[in-house]
Amino acid sequence: MGSYYSADIHGPFETHDLGDFQLENGAKIRNLSIAYATFGTLNADRSNAVLFPSWYSGTTKILEQAYVGAGRALDPAKYFIILVNQIGNGLSSSPSNTPPPFGAGRFPQVSIGDDVRAQYRLITEKFGIERLALVLGGSMGAQETWEWAVRFPDAVARAAPIAGLARETAHNQLFLDTIIEAITSDPAFEEGWYGEGAVHRGLRRHARLFAASGFTQNLFNRAGWSELGFTTTDDFVTGFVENHFLPQDPNNLLLLARKWRAGDISKHTKGDLAAAFKRIKAITHVIAIDEDVFFPLEDIAAAQALAPGSALRRVSSQWGHLALFGVDAGYTAAVDGFLNELLATRT
Amino acid sequence: MGSYYSADIHGPFETHDLGDFQLENGAKIRNLSIAYATFGTLNADRSNAVLFPSWYSGTTKILEQAYVGAGRALDPAKYFIILVNQIGNGLSSSPSNTPPPFGAGRFPQVSIGDDVRAQYRLITEKFGIERLALVLGGSMGAQETWEWAVRFPDAVARAAPIAGLARETAHNQLFLDTIIEAITSDPAFEEGWYGEGAVHRGLRRHARLFAASGFTQNLFNRAGWSELGFTTTDDFVTGFVENHFLPQDPNNLLLLARKWRAGDISKHTKGDLAAAFKRIKAITHVIAIDEDVFFPLEDIAAAQALAPGSALRRVSSQWGHLALFGVDAGYTAAVDGFLNELLATRT
Repeated sequence: MGSYYSADIHGPFETHDLGDFQLENGAKIRNLSIAYATFGTLNADRSNAVLFPSWYSGTTKILEQAYVGAGRALDPAKYFIILVNQIGNGLSSSPSNTPPPFGAGRFPQVSIGDDVRAQYRLITEKFGIERLALVLGGSMGAQETWEWAVRFPDAVARAAPIAGLARETAHNQLFLDTIIEAITSDPAFEEGWYGEGAVHRGLRRHARLFAASGFTQNLFNRAGWSELGFTTTDDFVTGFVENHFLPQDPNNLLLLARKWRAGDISKHTKGDLAAAFKRIKAITHVIAIDEDVFFPLEDIAAAQALAPGSALRRVSSQWGHLALFGVDAGYTAAVDGFLNELLATRT
Repeated sequence: MGSYYSADIHGPFETHDLGDFQLENGAKIRNLSIAYATFGTLNADRSNAVLFPSWYSGTTKILEQAYVGAGRALDPAKYFIILVNQIGNGLSSSPSNTPPPFGAGRFPQVSIGDDVRAQYRLITEKFGIERLALVLGGSMGAQETWEWAVRFPDAVARAAPIAGLARETAHNQLFLDTIIEAITSDPAFEEGWYGEGAVHRGLRRHARLFAASGFTQNLFNRAGWSELGFTTTDDFVTGFVENHFLPQDPNNLLLLARKWRAGDISKHTKGDLAAAFKRIKAITHVIAIDEDVFFPLEDIAAAQALAPGSALRRVSSQWGHLALFGVDAGYTAAVDGFLNELLATRT
């Protein structure tokens, strides 16, 4: 697995070692390493830092490619942008890069809260940052953004959760059950102790389930994938979606999917979701993709309505949830506009 | 398999033997038997017959329960109602009831057109009916309804395709690939030569994929299934969806899914879909379920717009596509209203 989860493919990154790290479920990660990449320069009063956690099955590389650059909302000339890899994504400590006996099928389950606590230590210990100008993230990154705003309200000036929820819905959990089972049901999975490349059937099944709900029906029915040079449904699903998932480590994906499934900010308030949202002090702009099947507009809007003083921003894309990848110029322009507007607010 | 596909469970039915039946793909079914159930009495001029084919994984029993009865649009006091089982559904000739060597994994693939040709022989040979007052069907039954109206335009006075398409979309085919693979990937499937009950993992996986898209997100997120007495997402998916699919024969389901996937009335007109619709002479009321994920309103409306002189009728249900099962009183009342309106038209 080493060849895929490398700087050759995912770009140069730094690591911050947190030593032994106690997880919320009582387990412990030995020598937790958080991988991150930064762009721009932290200013003297440390007030221009942006934190952007990765999402399901992605690393900081896709965040850089799709969201960071000169002239973009996240412009390294203005901001110190910290892209951070979730625990379990293959660059930070993960089942795939942890030696026996605690790697592979024995790597402990991690929560959204564990990630955010580790990221908090990164920004305070490594950079001395007390307050982030912006925390943003898409999908599972949005879950982490919500968690940041609720758990560390004084450390988040602005928040932009994109296409993700603060508490998972029952339907989203049912979907996640199907993609988890797609991998674990492969006889080659062997409870997580498989040979390299052995779980290809499970990974391809997982990829196709992801494709069937991750985009819109229109993308398929009107062959919208032809914009990227694909020729048939199968060519697109193989060349885009299977290509993304096949080189990844099955245990890593399962850890992330289970982390996603359990996301719930109301853990902070004994299940009272409204009370959890009330803790937020950040100026929060909640971004929804109208056609998103994983995180429907209706659910995003319901969350936004509970977040004090927040605003809802909507973007439409035939790419659905996976517009996050930056494949739709209209999405990219709209989200940059939303982020520019948010970053211009006074806190 | 015999115990599930029986009159004990699916009610009394008759069979019509068509002898050796040539399929569109060149293969042949020996002694094709079409199972059907009738309600009401054929009038003297044979003008009150209604034909209603079954849908995916269903038999004529659910059609009777959900759509036929005194005071309903399909009232046996007024109409001679012929409910007919699709080839491959376990009551008509199917992989599960065909003896070796042509049963199980060797049963030939059947098309929507094959079904409709066999049904045409049933109504003409058995009942001497030349023109049906109404052909209707839901989902795959809607595919057969469209096929009837295009293939035998003079034999269909009125048509009501409900929640189904005349030509499958690319996205629907991608979804069907996932539910087909859910069964065939079970190592116990053995290319269709499995022991009774052996493919339970594949069937349960298939059931869960069906559940995740067959209903609406709201049904899960607002626990709409509690109306039926279920207690949790898992309780509902197990008790309602797995309960439906687990006793069924995997080869039967695969035959039906592949038939569904290939549905395309434009086969009659060398791929020209608009030309195929122009053949229709029936008064056609096209019924869509607004929340349907399998057959989105947008796609149903696009088909309806191509059918000359047709009308679109819409119904909303939190049950989504599977409102077809008759679990939603609002759906049932609305559809009865649409059918009463259609049956009252003069032809």
